[in-house]
Amino acid sequence: MAAPANSTTFSGDVWAELRLADARDVPHIHSLIHQMAEFELLTDLFAATEELLTSTLFPSPTPPPFTSFTALILDLSPSPVVPDSSSTIASRRFDLSASPLADPEAAAFASPRGGGRVTAGFVICFPNYSTFLSKPGLYVEDIFVRAPWRRRGLGRMMLSAVAGRAAEIGMGRVEWCVLDWNKNAIDFYEGMGADVLPQWRICRLTGAALDKYKGNQEEAADGKAAA
Amino acid sequence: MAAPANSTTFSGDVWAELRLADARDVPHIHSLIHQMAEFELLTDLFAATEELLTSTLFPSPTPPPFTSFTALILDLSPSPVVPDSSSTIASRRFDLSASPLADPEAAAFASPRGGGRVTAGFVICFPNYSTFLSKPGLYVEDIFVRAPWRRRGLGRMMLSAVAGRAAEIGMGRVEWCVLDWNKNAIDFYEGMGADVLPQWRICRLTGAALDKYKGNQEEAADGKAAA
Repeated sequence: MAAPANSTTFSGDVWAELRLADARDVPHIHSLIHQMAEFELLTDLFAATEELLTSTLFPSPTPPPFTSFTALILDLSPSPVVPDSSSTIASRRFDLSASPLADPEAAAFASPRGGGRVTAGFVICFPNYSTFLSKPGLYVEDIFVRAPWRRRGLGRMMLSAVAGRAAEIGMGRVEWCVLDWNKNAIDFYEGMGADVLPQWRICRLTGAALDKYKGNQEEAADGKAAA
Repeated sequence: MAAPANSTTFSGDVWAELRLADARDVPHIHSLIHQMAEFELLTDLFAATEELLTSTLFPSPTPPPFTSFTALILDLSPSPVVPDSSSTIASRRFDLSASPLADPEAAAFASPRGGGRVTAGFVICFPNYSTFLSKPGLYVEDIFVRAPWRRRGLGRMMLSAVAGRAAEIGMGRVEWCVLDWNKNAIDFYEGMGADVLPQWRICRLTGAALDKYKGNQEEAADGKAAA
């Protein structure tokens, strides 16, 4: 398959780095979230803005990683990554010589870190809590790789690195959600050792259904109402 | 139905208070979590200890409520509750005169707040994050009422109060999980305006399957492995 005219082709060795994101990554994070919404057939729920992402993911001061909302970026580099202890979560060489890769969005997703790096994916995670374990865990809200970079082991690298970090800081479990029709994802997650829990369903209160509870405290505090 | 010999019977007016928990509530929280595990037929997963609950729910300093792991206690009082702005989330009078209530565990669950109060339930919640909204939400990990106090409107009071607080502080949604066989709970939640999402499944990596990812970073960072 020939690469589209505007594609950048990656071949031979490339170096992947999973690193902490910062506010400079927000435009790419915003675009990646939109691509994810398209993939999940959920664009009707997409309401992200760059302003909200910046203020909610990168408040000042930003809490230490994995203690609150944490955004990670996957960059691919044409030259070896020098790990930065303050931001590198994992790095790894990938050999693409057997199967070069054309990325038609490479220019649009140029990494703010420069050096010919391309942003190919992201992770959003935050601590959750298990009362049964009485320990924090890590909830992976999103893990996403742009289409040209899929099926190269990058998703496995990202989830492995996040799980490793969670285990190392004493978290009791790592959890995330999958759509029940996404058999590829389910097979992949089970292959990584995860259980897909059949019995639990997510309940969600949002929009107008949530807003109607505003001011509930005033109503509740005046002593009226019965059993 | 006659009350058991050691029961405390509540009749006439009682006052419910949903309040922030503190470390003095840990023994009751621990017992309530165990009762919840029994109800969910999940005692094999119960590994909570009072020591772990104290260190994980009430670290020093404890973050502001609803910004991290947050424990709330439901106390029932034989006398009117004077709301405390630093800890009361909601309070309400309940009229039990039409249907007095026998609590065989009232002595064991005497509230550390004194005044004849009895602890009847708890909530554990923490912020989660929606990338589609690019806003925090509130995840309710547990909401539990001891058996004698159920079907009196207390669960509704607790969830309404928590949802109200989440909406007031600008959170975009409130979420929790339900077992698909718990039809009573599903009907109750839908009656409160929640959607039960049919398609999402929870994936979980825990125990030995999680521990094997420890040290993954070293393996990943040495440059070996291929696509």
